[in-house]
Amino acid sequence: MSVDISPLAPKTYPDLPPVKGVRLATAAAGIKYKGRTDVMMMVFDAPASVAGVFTTSKCPSAPVDFCRANLGGGVARGVVVNSGNANAFTGRKGRQSTALTAKSAAEAIGCAESEIFLASTGVIGEPLDASKFSGVLGSLVGEAKESFWFDAAKAIMTTDTYPKVATRTAEIDGVTVTINGMAKGAGMIAPDMATMLSFVVTDADIAPAALQALLSAGVGPTFNSITVDSDTSTSDTLMLFATGAASADGQARVTDAGDSRLAAFRAALDDLLRDLALQVVRDGEGARKMLEITVEGAETDAAAKRIALSIANSPLVKTAVAGEDANWGRVVMAVGKAGEKADRDLLAIWFGDVRVAVEGERDPDYSEDAASAVMKREDIPLKVEIGLGDGRATVWTCDLTKAYVEINGDYRS
Amino acid sequence: MSVDISPLAPKTYPDLPPVKGVRLATAAAGIKYKGRTDVMMMVFDAPASVAGVFTTSKCPSAPVDFCRANLGGGVARGVVVNSGNANAFTGRKGRQSTALTAKSAAEAIGCAESEIFLASTGVIGEPLDASKFSGVLGSLVGEAKESFWFDAAKAIMTTDTYPKVATRTAEIDGVTVTINGMAKGAGMIAPDMATMLSFVVTDADIAPAALQALLSAGVGPTFNSITVDSDTSTSDTLMLFATGAASADGQARVTDAGDSRLAAFRAALDDLLRDLALQVVRDGEGARKMLEITVEGAETDAAAKRIALSIANSPLVKTAVAGEDANWGRVVMAVGKAGEKADRDLLAIWFGDVRVAVEGERDPDYSEDAASAVMKREDIPLKVEIGLGDGRATVWTCDLTKAYVEINGDYRS
Repeated sequence: MSVDISPLAPKTYPDLPPVKGVRLATAAAGIKYKGRTDVMMMVFDAPASVAGVFTTSKCPSAPVDFCRANLGGGVARGVVVNSGNANAFTGRKGRQSTALTAKSAAEAIGCAESEIFLASTGVIGEPLDASKFSGVLGSLVGEAKESFWFDAAKAIMTTDTYPKVATRTAEIDGVTVTINGMAKGAGMIAPDMATMLSFVVTDADIAPAALQALLSAGVGPTFNSITVDSDTSTSDTLMLFATGAASADGQARVTDAGDSRLAAFRAALDDLLRDLALQVVRDGEGARKMLEITVEGAETDAAAKRIALSIANSPLVKTAVAGEDANWGRVVMAVGKAGEKADRDLLAIWFGDVRVAVEGERDPDYSEDAASAVMKREDIPLKVEIGLGDGRATVWTCDLTKAYVEINGDYRS
Repeated sequence: MSVDISPLAPKTYPDLPPVKGVRLATAAAGIKYKGRTDVMMMVFDAPASVAGVFTTSKCPSAPVDFCRANLGGGVARGVVVNSGNANAFTGRKGRQSTALTAKSAAEAIGCAESEIFLASTGVIGEPLDASKFSGVLGSLVGEAKESFWFDAAKAIMTTDTYPKVATRTAEIDGVTVTINGMAKGAGMIAPDMATMLSFVVTDADIAPAALQALLSAGVGPTFNSITVDSDTSTSDTLMLFATGAASADGQARVTDAGDSRLAAFRAALDDLLRDLALQVVRDGEGARKMLEITVEGAETDAAAKRIALSIANSPLVKTAVAGEDANWGRVVMAVGKAGEKADRDLLAIWFGDVRVAVEGERDPDYSEDAASAVMKREDIPLKVEIGLGDGRATVWTCDLTKAYVEINGDYRS
């Protein structure tokens, strides 16, 4: 099946600078795809701090179990990611496969298996034959280079139509540090967190606990605020690594996430996570439009987020957006079904700057032409005022098109 | 837009006998549709017992508010239903519209407004001009006849591709009573209960409280176990009326739902509700296949139902069914995201009689050909064994096709 690049893809890609202390390499192992790379390896020449957040699925993949077990050690020397097979619901064979991959990677790098992190994405339920790539990890360690981010991002794609990368810089102690990230994901995307893999690396010197606190806080309004189809993957993995190489430039190690020296770093990290998360939504399977849904005036921020996600996950709202129809009646429906307190007679709804409903009725000054003009855009802001409190949240989703049905009705075969 | 009749429609329709004590009539008021009936009236010549269950939406329609207020009286003399406009999110104008309709109906029948029940289905947010049909209610009362069920069911359709009717009989006290029902609904169908209207009438003599208990119990495994698109309507209404006309044949009034004389009646009612509910699923917008999902071995029945609905509402499962793909990996995904306890290594999954997965892995004896043959059927049974307890539930849904996107991307305009 040939799929065109999403019309919402970035017009240009950033040039990712090296991040000192990490090298990357890829290989084409033919796991499922032909004629493309499907294995990506990250090598940390010195032990890096590691943080991670994972799927909330009760049936997580073998690599997710593996990473969770290793995360407590706080140290990473290598990451191996494959696309084409998720190694999920593969039972004992799945654990054998992660064990073989970790063993091969640890031998190649010369570190403990507990310092290796793994991720797999692709088909669920098919055994992953890790021997297809375990033999090449040794040469990947030798080939790995600092300036290989864009190629690395390509190797972890599945139904993605474009690679997703982002880069930021920030100052800590007057020392400039870099943050690079890559992500993959297009379908089975929902909070918390869907078939989404993302790997972010900085050369900052930050202790594991502080790094974890930064990541856990940063994921809420970014990766945990996007949804493509409400389906949560068995494999979602977002990892953040800090090589500490900036210590050579005089950056003193930060051990507390609340340290004021991290303010700029935290802002840059959050901004990068948001950038990557939105790139995932904009590559939603079959997406032609992105919808940014802001709910204000709910009882609490959590209530606002639940209402926003109810709107974002409604097939009727998403098909209306696909049809460029400012169908705010379906927005009302989705507010009503969210289960949070709402008073019909206090609701107001905007598409872009056009207020289409107010005080429980169609806005008397509402112009269908103006609303239609908003719906023709690629990026459509939708705002709902609940009128009950100060709770506020923004989430992002894409439209539901025939192409989504086509892609997913003919994926495994 | 012309829509073909669902391939899952009944091959034949039952002949509905009269139910003594209720007469029906319809009119074409041009509320939205041209060249078809869009108003349906039920007239009870003597006060009937009434029971109802309604949408869980926090933003219910004006008619739902109106019915809830009248339900406490326990007595009905008339029902007015219109299609083409849901009178939802219409604020003060919505209440004026229900008041006008109720006043006109009460005058025409010669009863109190508190004995009138109303329902509206169609577009949300557009003011409903009840004066379009309030003037004809007087002649409808005169025209109404006992043998008009099929025509009545047609008048309440919106995106339905066929009218939905069912009939059953049962004995109470050795007296044969009849139960007739009609339903409408095709999209925005989810528990609990979606844009679904259903009106069921029996000539049995049952007191309001007992009738309500029967209905509240009957709706759980029937109308509250179906989903088309996970979207819950503002307007869902299921009402059950008992005219009591069978008392003339010697049936003594039943006042307690636990009365053993009701056993056969309860079974017949539940069977009729299930029949109507499945007809709604089988007319799901764009549906080409029906999926019957049974979850066994969950911790509780409630947990089983939550897992079953997670599967039923997964766009990825539904598109796979549309593609005739026995993609049990997506079933695992949906089990995992349900939030209920599940152990990957205990799961087993069947499509029809074909066990495709067992003990956390693909079934070694699994034949793709046999599974594919099941997927080619119109009705596809899917069973998931959780392996943890005795909890059990069955829910029904349909596939997600391009036609769903087409229908809903171009509905309001």
